[in-house]
Amino acid sequence: MAIREKVFGIVTGVFKRHGGVAIDTPVFELKETLTGKYGEDSKLIYDLADQGGELSSLRYDLTVPFARYLATKKLTSMRRYHIAKVYRRDNPARGRFREFYQCDFDIAGQYELMVPDFEILKIATELLDKLNIGSYEVKLNHRRLLDGMLEICGVPAEKFRTICSSIDKLDKLPWEDVKKEVQDKGLSEEAADKIGTLVVKRGKPLELLEELMRDDSPFRGNAASEQALSEMKQLFSYMEVGKCLDRYVFDLSLARGLDYYTGVIFEAVFTGTVKMGSIAAGGRYDDLVGMFSGLQVPAVGMSLGIERVFAIMEEQSSQVAVRKTQTDVLVLGIGKSLWNVVIAIANELWELEIGTEFKCVAPGKIKKNLSDASDKDCIPWVVLVGQDELDQGVVKLRNMSEKIEEEISRDGLAAIIQTRIASAACAT
Amino acid sequence: MAIREKVFGIVTGVFKRHGGVAIDTPVFELKETLTGKYGEDSKLIYDLADQGGELSSLRYDLTVPFARYLATKKLTSMRRYHIAKVYRRDNPARGRFREFYQCDFDIAGQYELMVPDFEILKIATELLDKLNIGSYEVKLNHRRLLDGMLEICGVPAEKFRTICSSIDKLDKLPWEDVKKEVQDKGLSEEAADKIGTLVVKRGKPLELLEELMRDDSPFRGNAASEQALSEMKQLFSYMEVGKCLDRYVFDLSLARGLDYYTGVIFEAVFTGTVKMGSIAAGGRYDDLVGMFSGLQVPAVGMSLGIERVFAIMEEQSSQVAVRKTQTDVLVLGIGKSLWNVVIAIANELWELEIGTEFKCVAPGKIKKNLSDASDKDCIPWVVLVGQDELDQGVVKLRNMSEKIEEEISRDGLAAIIQTRIASAACAT
Repeated sequence: MAIREKVFGIVTGVFKRHGGVAIDTPVFELKETLTGKYGEDSKLIYDLADQGGELSSLRYDLTVPFARYLATKKLTSMRRYHIAKVYRRDNPARGRFREFYQCDFDIAGQYELMVPDFEILKIATELLDKLNIGSYEVKLNHRRLLDGMLEICGVPAEKFRTICSSIDKLDKLPWEDVKKEVQDKGLSEEAADKIGTLVVKRGKPLELLEELMRDDSPFRGNAASEQALSEMKQLFSYMEVGKCLDRYVFDLSLARGLDYYTGVIFEAVFTGTVKMGSIAAGGRYDDLVGMFSGLQVPAVGMSLGIERVFAIMEEQSSQVAVRKTQTDVLVLGIGKSLWNVVIAIANELWELEIGTEFKCVAPGKIKKNLSDASDKDCIPWVVLVGQDELDQGVVKLRNMSEKIEEEISRDGLAAIIQTRIASAACAT
Repeated sequence: MAIREKVFGIVTGVFKRHGGVAIDTPVFELKETLTGKYGEDSKLIYDLADQGGELSSLRYDLTVPFARYLATKKLTSMRRYHIAKVYRRDNPARGRFREFYQCDFDIAGQYELMVPDFEILKIATELLDKLNIGSYEVKLNHRRLLDGMLEICGVPAEKFRTICSSIDKLDKLPWEDVKKEVQDKGLSEEAADKIGTLVVKRGKPLELLEELMRDDSPFRGNAASEQALSEMKQLFSYMEVGKCLDRYVFDLSLARGLDYYTGVIFEAVFTGTVKMGSIAAGGRYDDLVGMFSGLQVPAVGMSLGIERVFAIMEEQSSQVAVRKTQTDVLVLGIGKSLWNVVIAIANELWELEIGTEFKCVAPGKIKKNLSDASDKDCIPWVVLVGQDELDQGVVKLRNMSEKIEEEISRDGLAAIIQTRIASAACAT
C-alpha cells in the first residue's frame, strides 16, 4: 500500500495538471446500464443477488459509469478523472485480478476536432513516462478506418463489430487462427485473405499515414477511411508539436474489443523484459452517453491498468524502499512504571502533529527495541525515558541515523524535538 | 470530491502520526466469513449472485475483513488503517447510505493492559477535533461491565447478547419500549426494572467510576464487573494523562449492537445543531481473529463514519471553498489558427509539472474566457497567445488576481512562468 500510495500520487499529479476534476460513482450500477456495452466480455460482469429492489451489477470499468453519470446529471462537458476498483469474473493471472484499480481520465464535450484526442494520448504517454517502468509502445488506430477496411474487404456492416473482436485477438493469436474464426463467422476466404493483407500494416504514424493516403492505396475512395485518415493527419500534427508522436505506432490490426468506441483507439503495451498484457488503453466513444440520455455528448478517454504497472515494478524490483509508516519519534520508557510519563510525552508530540509511537519495555530489552526502531521501522528519532534522568528533569533524544544522543530538558521537550526534525529535514 | 480529498487528508494524517500502516482488502468476502458477526444487522448484508464459484458478500464493515486478513496471513500483531467503502442494504437517510466510506484504525496484538485501548480512544477524539465539526460527546462503557450488570439483574448468560441489542436502542427509544422488548425476550418484570435502574447511570468517567466502586455499589462482588471497573480505572488514568478524558462520558446504557466486542466500547455522538447518529465508534474485540484461525489475537479499534461528518459539514456550510481543479495556467490562443503554438506552450509547461489547460477561441470570446478562468475555474495565470505578438517573438502573461499583464519572450516562456508561480506562492 505504501508503494501504491506513491504511484497513485504520481498518477493523480498528472491528471490534476491536465485540469482533471475527481469524481466518484457507486460500485454498483443497474444491471441494464452495463448490458450491451462490452461485447463478448459481458459474461465477465458480476451480478448482485436478487434480495429485493433493483437488479444491480458491479461496475466492469469506469467508462460506462462515467457516461451514465453525465447522462443522469445532464452534463454536456466534463474533464474528469477517477481512480477506483472495477470487477471482472475473469481467471486471475499475473497483473490480472477479479478486483483491480483502474485510473481513468476522460474529456467529454464538444471541442475542436482532435484536440481532446491529442490531450488524452499525451496524458497516456506522460503517465507511462513518469511511472518510469521502462520501454513501452502504444498502438494507435481509428475505428472508422477499421470499418472502412472491412467495407473494402466486402464485410457486411452488421458484422463489423464481431469481426473487430476477432481482429482484436491478433496480438495473442496467429493470423491463421483469426482467419479461421472470421470464416466461422461467415466471411468468404477471399474477404478473409484481403483483411489479412491489410491488418499487417503497421509503422511510424506519419510514414504509414502517407502510404495509406497515396493514390494507389486501397483506402482511397472509401468515405469512412478517407475521413478517418484526415482526422489522423490532424491528430498526428498535434502529437508532433506535443512531443508524444514518437511513442506511437500506427497499427491497422488494433481493434479493441469493446463495443462503444467510435473514433481513435489506442493500447499501450510494455516492451521491456516482462511479458504483460496492455497497460493502458482508450479511445473515442461519441455515442455512449446518448445511449443513456438520448443527448449526444462526444467523449474520449483513457484507462491505466495500474495493477499491471505494479506487477512490472515488482518483477523489476526497481522500486525504491518505501517506509510503511511515517512515524518520526518513538518514545521509549525504560521500565514498566513509566507509562504515564511516556503517554504524556507522546501526547505533546501528537499535539504538534509529529508522528509518534510509544512503549515501555524492561531495561534488558532497550537494545533490541532500538535496533528494531532503526532497522525494521526506520524511525529517525527515539526519546529514551529513564527514571534516573527524569529525576533530574531530563530525557535522552537519540538521532537514529547519526547515532548521537543528547540530554534535553523534560520541559519544552516537544518543541525542541520539532526543531530537530525540521532542521534535519532541511539538511537532507 | 475536492472536499472529500481534503478531509481524507486530515484523517490519514492522524492515522499515520499514530504509526498506522495502510492495508487494502477485497470488497467481497466469503459469505461465511460475515455470517454470525453482526447480530440483528446481518440482514443488511449484500450478497453476490451465484454465478459459479464461492458464495460471496460485500463487506459490511472493515473490522471483520481486518480480522480475517490477520487470520489468513497468520499475523499476531498489526497497527493498520483502512479507508474504504462498505455496503449495507439499509434505508438511506441523511448521512446514511447503502455505499459509504469508513475510516478505521485498529491495533491488534498483545500489549500492556489498556494501553492500545487508550490510544484508540485518543485517536477518535483527535480525529473529531481536527475535523473541526463542532461539539460532540463520546459515550464509553465496557462489555464485561454490561455482562456483570445483566448477571446481577438475573439475566441468564445465553440471553446477554440479545438483551444488549435491546439496551443499545436506548438512544432512540424510551425505556418503556425497551423494557417491553426485553420482557418479550423472556425477562421477568423484576429483572427488567432492575436493569432500568442501572442503565440510567452516566456521568464524568472518574466520578461514576468512584460511585460504581464504592462498598454499597451493586456491582461489588460481581467478578466480571470488578474486573471491568479495574480496567476502566487504569484506562482513565492513561486518558487523563493523554488529555482526552474530558471528551468522554461513562454511560452504562451504551451496549453497541455488534456481537464481536469483548471489552471497552465507545460511540461518539454529534451534539451540535444538526441531529445525526453516531459519527465514530469502536471497541475491543479479542475473539474475532480466533473465530477464523483458532489463534487468539486481541484487538481494539475504531471506525469513523465519514459520510456523517460530510453531512454535518454540508449542514453547517462551514467548509472553506475548495478549488475543483489545480490548474495553474490557461494557455489561450486568440484565433483558431494557433492550435499548434498553444499545444507547444502547454507541453512545455507540463514538462515542468505545471498544471495547464489550453484552448483557442475566436477574438470576440477572449473576454468571456478570461472571466470564466478567473471566476469559475479560479485559474491564477493566463498566457494570451496572439499572432501579432508572436510575430514579435512575445506572448502576454496575465496575473489573474492582480489583473496585471506583462509581455514575455516566447523563448524560455515556461521557465519564466515557473518562476512567477513560485514567487507568487512564496508571497502568500
